[in-house]
Amino acid sequence: MGVADLSPAAAREAFRGGLVTPTAGYSRGYAQANLIIVPQAQAFDVLLFAQRNPKPCPILGVLDAGETTGALLAGGDIRTDVPKYAVYRDGVLADEPTDITGYWREDLVTFIVGCSFTFEAALQDGGVRVAHIDQGVNVPMYRTDVRCEPAGSLSGPLVVSMRPVPAGQVADAVRITSRYPAVHGAPVHVGHPGELGIADLGRPDFGEPVEIPEGHLPVFWACGVTPQAAVMESHPALAIGHAPGHMLVTDARDSDYLVP
Amino acid sequence: MGVADLSPAAAREAFRGGLVTPTAGYSRGYAQANLIIVPQAQAFDVLLFAQRNPKPCPILGVLDAGETTGALLAGGDIRTDVPKYAVYRDGVLADEPTDITGYWREDLVTFIVGCSFTFEAALQDGGVRVAHIDQGVNVPMYRTDVRCEPAGSLSGPLVVSMRPVPAGQVADAVRITSRYPAVHGAPVHVGHPGELGIADLGRPDFGEPVEIPEGHLPVFWACGVTPQAAVMESHPALAIGHAPGHMLVTDARDSDYLVP
Repeated sequence: MGVADLSPAAAREAFRGGLVTPTAGYSRGYAQANLIIVPQAQAFDVLLFAQRNPKPCPILGVLDAGETTGALLAGGDIRTDVPKYAVYRDGVLADEPTDITGYWREDLVTFIVGCSFTFEAALQDGGVRVAHIDQGVNVPMYRTDVRCEPAGSLSGPLVVSMRPVPAGQVADAVRITSRYPAVHGAPVHVGHPGELGIADLGRPDFGEPVEIPEGHLPVFWACGVTPQAAVMESHPALAIGHAPGHMLVTDARDSDYLVP
Repeated sequence: MGVADLSPAAAREAFRGGLVTPTAGYSRGYAQANLIIVPQAQAFDVLLFAQRNPKPCPILGVLDAGETTGALLAGGDIRTDVPKYAVYRDGVLADEPTDITGYWREDLVTFIVGCSFTFEAALQDGGVRVAHIDQGVNVPMYRTDVRCEPAGSLSGPLVVSMRPVPAGQVADAVRITSRYPAVHGAPVHVGHPGELGIADLGRPDFGEPVEIPEGHLPVFWACGVTPQAAVMESHPALAIGHAPGHMLVTDARDSDYLVP
């Protein structure tokens, strides 16, 4: 049995037990999610930022202040069930723990944000290979020079993930992913990274580079690391995210987010 | 020139000038919207309530605290441009002014919420008659016994609007409106008002009754008055909505909210 066959609860249990790994390919058929956790005082700004920037920040669920579990992680604990976290103090990455129990406060509000991993199984089922899974690396992610709509104290750049797609399958990749609007949906750009302000695809801001084979185009999707980039730029006293690529494996099925 | 031909700006100007009327049929092709305005201290709860109840509360835009205009009402003023408002004090309807300038405060946050009027032109174009437009009355709306997902201090019932549809066109009505998910989308119920806890279609909780011709079924859509029903149940010190059926006519085109 491979990691693709683990139930979400079993995957979360493994991460809770100390396994640290990017989660692409885990629990095939189940939606993975980004995290952004902030004190109640900043929660409106985060939710409004998400409302104004739905492509990078599709909200799948919000836990009430202090709440550590919910329908998307039944029986789980948001403080332990993600393989690795990113803790920001005043917008600066201060720690990458595998457990945030020591940081927990009763006023923390958890936002669970859709992730493009959700549509990767659909891409594969549609015959579009997913390079970072094939190459066994974390998906490459880039800060762009496209600005998000600001909300209150939060502003920042659009972050994108990149997958190389054979030229003849770009239309398929667009068609397939556009049916998943709740998890970033259709690409935001195809083919010219320079137009997004990305100077070198070989040096991603998060994750790892992937090889772009001859005849493939780089295709860019909005990425759920975007709220963390806004946090870095906006310097709230405390914010906690997942470590990029190290997602929450939820109990929601990918197909729950499929539209006709 | 009929009211259907007025530009949104011209319609808003007429309402600003004192015209008081339900807005169904105004500015054909442009999206109309519900309002809910609350102090900043309650804004997170409203936005979270909307996130958890997207069918009745699809957010089209949020104005920053104190802001009175925005892209959805270019050159307009949210305090004067709706034909009639509903002011709630401690959850009780306290006033129905045609202008809320006297109630305005710098900490008020305006939520602009999608409205099913947006898909009525599409229904008509698809050959499905809209009874309340034909009969020249305000759409009938009903409190149901379906509970919304609560959020913080806010909880309340799902409110629905009702349109009678010929039995042979129910599938058309579902198909057409499902393509407008940002403005309530597909119906929530077809045919049995009792299952929603509606005892008498002739006595709507908001708006006016419409005749249900022989061979028609009552079809129910989630309604943007739902946040106001939550306000009535949750008793915040101050909240302001539109008077039901008296909507904000926005500059967004209905087609902006159409999905493939």
